[in-house]
Amino acid sequence: MPKLLHFPLDPYSRRSRLALAEYGEACTLAEERPWAPTQTLFDYNPSGILPVFIEDTGFAVCGIEALSEYLEETRGGRLNLLPGSALQRAEIRRLVAWFDVKFYTEVSEPLISEKVLRRFLSADNGGGAPDMARVRQARHLLKSHLDYVSYLVEENSWLAGDDLSLADLAAAAHLSAIDYLGDMPWAEHPVVKSWYQRIKSRPSFRVLLQDNIAAMPPAASYADLDF
Amino acid sequence: MPKLLHFPLDPYSRRSRLALAEYGEACTLAEERPWAPTQTLFDYNPSGILPVFIEDTGFAVCGIEALSEYLEETRGGRLNLLPGSALQRAEIRRLVAWFDVKFYTEVSEPLISEKVLRRFLSADNGGGAPDMARVRQARHLLKSHLDYVSYLVEENSWLAGDDLSLADLAAAAHLSAIDYLGDMPWAEHPVVKSWYQRIKSRPSFRVLLQDNIAAMPPAASYADLDF
Repeated sequence: MPKLLHFPLDPYSRRSRLALAEYGEACTLAEERPWAPTQTLFDYNPSGILPVFIEDTGFAVCGIEALSEYLEETRGGRLNLLPGSALQRAEIRRLVAWFDVKFYTEVSEPLISEKVLRRFLSADNGGGAPDMARVRQARHLLKSHLDYVSYLVEENSWLAGDDLSLADLAAAAHLSAIDYLGDMPWAEHPVVKSWYQRIKSRPSFRVLLQDNIAAMPPAASYADLDF
Repeated sequence: MPKLLHFPLDPYSRRSRLALAEYGEACTLAEERPWAPTQTLFDYNPSGILPVFIEDTGFAVCGIEALSEYLEETRGGRLNLLPGSALQRAEIRRLVAWFDVKFYTEVSEPLISEKVLRRFLSADNGGGAPDMARVRQARHLLKSHLDYVSYLVEENSWLAGDDLSLADLAAAAHLSAIDYLGDMPWAEHPVVKSWYQRIKSRPSFRVLLQDNIAAMPPAASYADLDF
């Protein structure tokens, strides 16, 4: 069975788990801790970046960009996460990059670094209490991203059109990590909440809802489908 | 004719120009300045990120991730920049992400921000003299990336194997921007230099070698094929 090297709260690892479940591909999970990466991770991926997907042959597919396209090429068919014409696929990939680059830089990275990584890093490696100015700035920028998600799902059933796509999985992977931390202002964004309820109810999401990092349990309503 | 919104020293815009030339696709160029983006850019791409490729139909493909795949899907055939099996394509995409994420964060972004953007930004938007500590740190990290490029091209003719691929274009786009700034230590990395000479001699590279930003001419040997 293939294996995935991942960290539960890493948005890119989360999207890979969602995509694998949507494609119906079983795999074993091996947890990495970004604050203490193993030699195994570097042996497979010299950049040390997660996720890494290891085929039964031993071949490793490294990083979210390569893995998303690889899974679509090798596991797509019954279901495609990059459906449609070249133009529609370009729109899906534009939105995936929106979340993986812009949203990550402005929201996910500061929240996860300040609230998770700094908790586990030693003091001489940047560990300690969160920098609350960075946390507040990320929470502030989160709002305009949620307005953009509202705009998109008011236009269509799913983020990039009538079909579920990698764009929905990318957005849900980032937002669910932030929801784990208790930083999602659901009440102020009912349209986003309604879209998230639909995706959270999919069987592929179950594995994410069981996440529980040692010494850092999820926010109260994280696993609740009626949040 | 299609149009590309670009900035000459943006590594992602550079790679798009190289890819378009390799595919044999002519397009007009419209220059954007990252320190003063136009409303036109935001109208096409709400994230304001370059490059943006506009088809004759008016449809815009936004961002390097979507554009690279879109061009391969619509302009590939005679030449492919993502050649080979799913596994080979995964290796190309791994290396593209190495340059677009890791190399960009550690080297291109600090060098371009400090030496180019700060020169054109107003003082209250972060303009001013370069932060030389960031410049020195980027130059230091550049060396280990060049060691990695040496290792890759000692193994194969091109970065990801026997064929030119998007990985070579990604690396060359970043390195050529740094070469423009005069920060490439060619003498210390003869294997990288030999690979770069081969790619710099390709017809697709000519348009990049004509780049000349107002008030900021390229380093002396930038356009020289015998550097």
